[in-house]
Amino acid sequence: MNKRVCGVDIGGTTVKLALFDGETLLDKWEIPTRTENRGSAILQDVAQSVRDHCSPDAVGVGVPGPVSESGIVSSTANLGWDSPVDLSGTLGETLGVPVVTANDANVAALGEMWHGAGRGHDSIVMLTLGTGLGGGVVIRGEILAGANGAGGEIGHIHIDDDEKDFCGCGNQGCLEQYVSATGMVRLARKHAVYRDRSDLTAREVWDAVKAGEGAAIETASVWGRILAKGMAIIAAVVDPELFVIGGGMSKAGPVILDYLTAAYRQYAYRATKDTGIVLATLGNDAGVYGCAKLALDRL
Amino acid sequence: MNKRVCGVDIGGTTVKLALFDGETLLDKWEIPTRTENRGSAILQDVAQSVRDHCSPDAVGVGVPGPVSESGIVSSTANLGWDSPVDLSGTLGETLGVPVVTANDANVAALGEMWHGAGRGHDSIVMLTLGTGLGGGVVIRGEILAGANGAGGEIGHIHIDDDEKDFCGCGNQGCLEQYVSATGMVRLARKHAVYRDRSDLTAREVWDAVKAGEGAAIETASVWGRILAKGMAIIAAVVDPELFVIGGGMSKAGPVILDYLTAAYRQYAYRATKDTGIVLATLGNDAGVYGCAKLALDRL
Repeated sequence: MNKRVCGVDIGGTTVKLALFDGETLLDKWEIPTRTENRGSAILQDVAQSVRDHCSPDAVGVGVPGPVSESGIVSSTANLGWDSPVDLSGTLGETLGVPVVTANDANVAALGEMWHGAGRGHDSIVMLTLGTGLGGGVVIRGEILAGANGAGGEIGHIHIDDDEKDFCGCGNQGCLEQYVSATGMVRLARKHAVYRDRSDLTAREVWDAVKAGEGAAIETASVWGRILAKGMAIIAAVVDPELFVIGGGMSKAGPVILDYLTAAYRQYAYRATKDTGIVLATLGNDAGVYGCAKLALDRL
Repeated sequence: MNKRVCGVDIGGTTVKLALFDGETLLDKWEIPTRTENRGSAILQDVAQSVRDHCSPDAVGVGVPGPVSESGIVSSTANLGWDSPVDLSGTLGETLGVPVVTANDANVAALGEMWHGAGRGHDSIVMLTLGTGLGGGVVIRGEILAGANGAGGEIGHIHIDDDEKDFCGCGNQGCLEQYVSATGMVRLARKHAVYRDRSDLTAREVWDAVKAGEGAAIETASVWGRILAKGMAIIAAVVDPELFVIGGGMSKAGPVILDYLTAAYRQYAYRATKDTGIVLATLGNDAGVYGCAKLALDRL
């Protein structure tokens, strides 16, 4: 008989939940994330919602913050948590089943490997291009969480010595400052045509790329070269079988790969030049898939 | 009863061999590496030498070239091998025991983790500063070999867009071009006092640093900042518990860490700022220790 597991992807505004019977998705639902009172209700809400819907054999949880190898969640501003949380321990005790916790970008990578663009592989790097740049490294089927929960924090690869602006992390010249949606808008606004457009979005830039507009195309070229450089660096460290590009920006579609793949081949170390680069396929569901896989792997 | 294993570290001029009884080193010896005739005698020589000395339960082998997860050695110029070699299969058949093969920089990392500076850790990155810059990544006690055997090829992290000289790999601006022994000499020779010194060595530069000479100290500062930047990048990808600095240049001693540690703390992503940085302790024996550990892990 298949094991039943529940995937719980905790985001800053919504918690996505899904019930799986082995490999099969049975049900999907959402609850709001109550971040008030330092997020003190979040885990109770999750436990209640899981109990109302199902009796899983195990639960996998993704959170938008660093999670150590031992499953401790660091303070996570997005959820209102201002001190470390033993999420697996607390929720596991409440529910009476094993709970496994990991970072949200890492579980998304695991989800894409299990049922998405990375199917058939067991070592991938996923880049999540949204407001920031998240990353997930999966090696031999397992998330590389890192000693401090910073495994796959590829948004903070140092890429430019001459940067004057600060990254949210406090450093200067992080990859995220150029290639996230916010970063791409920053690159675009160096062009006269976009300079005064404080409401510019990455989506609009990509639409303009598709329409053949010069400043947008130049922006995409610079964006592609910088991200490709970051990916070449990642390949020289972990040499994955495949790169998977996800997050909101990936909705711009295959045009992204036009600006990325050739530049990657140029910068990559020779043994890694042919590594595949593909778009994610699970969209916002990557997280709950990855959480479910985490839980299944624990059983 | 302990298992007996043999570690075989194949270098370009010498093959180092060692016999272990479980954790205990019993014997160490060397044979020349016969690279003539496209290195066709190397594996026979190794098999003969192992048989003459011992009857191990398993053998671990390190080679100076990329080795895939499945144990295939790519063409390895240093050994005269001009096509891929199924080393584990060939040697395993000859000796009648399991043979495990990995890249030499990777086995050195495993050796340092097992019996050297990384003892007590299970996730480390070792940097081998020699003629080139080798790297080994060990995660959860296992070598990260990579899909193309390029895991830990940190010498080829792209670090400078403006480099005019080419790296041996064919790219420009690789980390190795600045921080290997050769790279450090190249940095030093930008100073008038060293410009005409075609026989300059990194050892001499470090001696001059210890003697307080200005140009050498400036060279060491630049060297430290560049290597620190590379290590900060590595930490944002794999977040190891510890960095271990080995290779010939590490013989300069703790002065190396003076130029490395502070710069690393500056560039590192916040969660990884406190990662330890230590000097390797096994010297040239790191390889045979790592090979033995590989073999023990297979049994």
